[in-house]
Amino acid sequence: MDKRCIGIDIGGTTVKMGMFEPDGTLVEKWEIPTRKEEGGRYILEDIAASVRKKTAECGLSLSDFSGAGMGLPGPVMPDGHIEFCVNLGWKAGNPQQTLSALLDGMQVKSGNDANVAALGEMWQGGGRGYKNLVMVTLGTGVGGGVILNERIWPGMQGVGGEIGHIHVIEGETEACNCGGYGCLEQVASATGIAREARRLLAADKRDSVLRSKEKITAKDVLSAARDGDALALTVVETSCRYLGWALAAVTMVLDPQAYIIGGGVSKAGTFLTEKIKKYHDKLSPMATRKADVVLATLGNDAGIYGAAKLVLG
Amino acid sequence: MDKRCIGIDIGGTTVKMGMFEPDGTLVEKWEIPTRKEEGGRYILEDIAASVRKKTAECGLSLSDFSGAGMGLPGPVMPDGHIEFCVNLGWKAGNPQQTLSALLDGMQVKSGNDANVAALGEMWQGGGRGYKNLVMVTLGTGVGGGVILNERIWPGMQGVGGEIGHIHVIEGETEACNCGGYGCLEQVASATGIAREARRLLAADKRDSVLRSKEKITAKDVLSAARDGDALALTVVETSCRYLGWALAAVTMVLDPQAYIIGGGVSKAGTFLTEKIKKYHDKLSPMATRKADVVLATLGNDAGIYGAAKLVLG
Repeated sequence: MDKRCIGIDIGGTTVKMGMFEPDGTLVEKWEIPTRKEEGGRYILEDIAASVRKKTAECGLSLSDFSGAGMGLPGPVMPDGHIEFCVNLGWKAGNPQQTLSALLDGMQVKSGNDANVAALGEMWQGGGRGYKNLVMVTLGTGVGGGVILNERIWPGMQGVGGEIGHIHVIEGETEACNCGGYGCLEQVASATGIAREARRLLAADKRDSVLRSKEKITAKDVLSAARDGDALALTVVETSCRYLGWALAAVTMVLDPQAYIIGGGVSKAGTFLTEKIKKYHDKLSPMATRKADVVLATLGNDAGIYGAAKLVLG
Repeated sequence: MDKRCIGIDIGGTTVKMGMFEPDGTLVEKWEIPTRKEEGGRYILEDIAASVRKKTAECGLSLSDFSGAGMGLPGPVMPDGHIEFCVNLGWKAGNPQQTLSALLDGMQVKSGNDANVAALGEMWQGGGRGYKNLVMVTLGTGVGGGVILNERIWPGMQGVGGEIGHIHVIEGETEACNCGGYGCLEQVASATGIAREARRLLAADKRDSVLRSKEKITAKDVLSAARDGDALALTVVETSCRYLGWALAAVTMVLDPQAYIIGGGVSKAGTFLTEKIKKYHDKLSPMATRKADVVLATLGNDAGIYGAAKLVLG
């Protein structure tokens, strides 16, 4: 198969799209706004129109493509069925069937966006060379994706890889978005790191550059920690300890080759991954061959890469 | 394929063996002692001799079998290689190749005993009808096995499914057998439940039937809890809470259909599984379709069933 394919990553604000060669070369990349009005009914039509336009611009026709892959912000069943996509306003349906119909029957496959990003990183990003890995995306929340034998493992209901909602904090009284208490996301997401810093500033008398900030962000905390601010460093160690703990639990279940760390928080680089690895290794002594903990490299493009890989198989 | 096959479960004291029809019917079951002297060098020879003897007794020859499966007490690589089997005195080698040679080239497959038991329970036990499940064996230690798409997931180094070594207890100062601190096994194994009871008896002033016992066992604790002993019930709730917590973490990673609870401690029945399920469900609110928590049914035969299934594929 040497036909090109399309990778589509549908977010709450923009839809990112890419045209790929089968070898993983990204030949065109573009995006359109996500029209969420009226229950998001125009989103797939907009995508189909945009794909047709780009295809024509490249002097190609739809039949020159092997198919299109699509990452969706919500749980996706193996047959492409979704129960809802809160961020897009979608209710139950099968968006991959709908898009296929809008593209003259082109093969369309879909998956959860975090899982699809994990597949993209495995294929052309920080996870190249690994067949079994778990990706963790540290952004506003903590997402994740499990890749086994080079394929997404979505689980029975699409909850597979929801690393951010592993319970790790005993006694947490504030609720997580999922309804639970003490999820990893509450201490390791950008929001969680900032919250942890605010809590520590209130409880700890040490001086800190963070005290001068009006609104503390995870970036402030990580940058201060790197510059040697002791209080900020305590916060980062706490977040990384819980991350390492959750990944150590994953190791005891799946024993993967590697963990890929992505998302905005991962811009802190090896300063972050080395700490995560330190705690992971300490909390999984049984695993004598330690999994690698590496940085994602595709950034916001991981979704379109993974979506394309869905089609290439 | 309608040839019979052999399932072999090698333990530190006895080797259990079974002859199976391809449909899962156990037609013969027998055992021999495990001769551990001289680095366990006679174990495989004894097994081969016993298989030949039983085969002849049944009026069959080795060529009437599709193969033999074998569960080993230690990590097993996908090609059957082992680094060691502490309980048998074995060092690095490939026991499945050795046994095959001793049985005139019969097909032999092997796997870790806990994983193989999980496969057995999926095939003919408490896990019948599920394709994706995680088994947890609550015995002297806490073992486990992950079954995905009806196959064992051993992980990169055979650590997959080591549920007992998920870290859950903060601040534990006593070391686990694995070298870690605060593993599930330390609070949910038979040993762990008894230890937890001793600790609570020392720290808690309440009266309890357990105070009259000279040496408290997990069975004593479970039986007292069932009879309404408040202190024993506290111990059982603690163990089940940590079990539910660890399984909730597994749900966030793999989202399986079911958990199968086996081992000596599971003789407490649904009194135990209902409590485990209560905490699992509470700590995994994101999984709206809750995994089943069911009892294993094959007892000590799970290993020979699973070993046979290894060969049947």
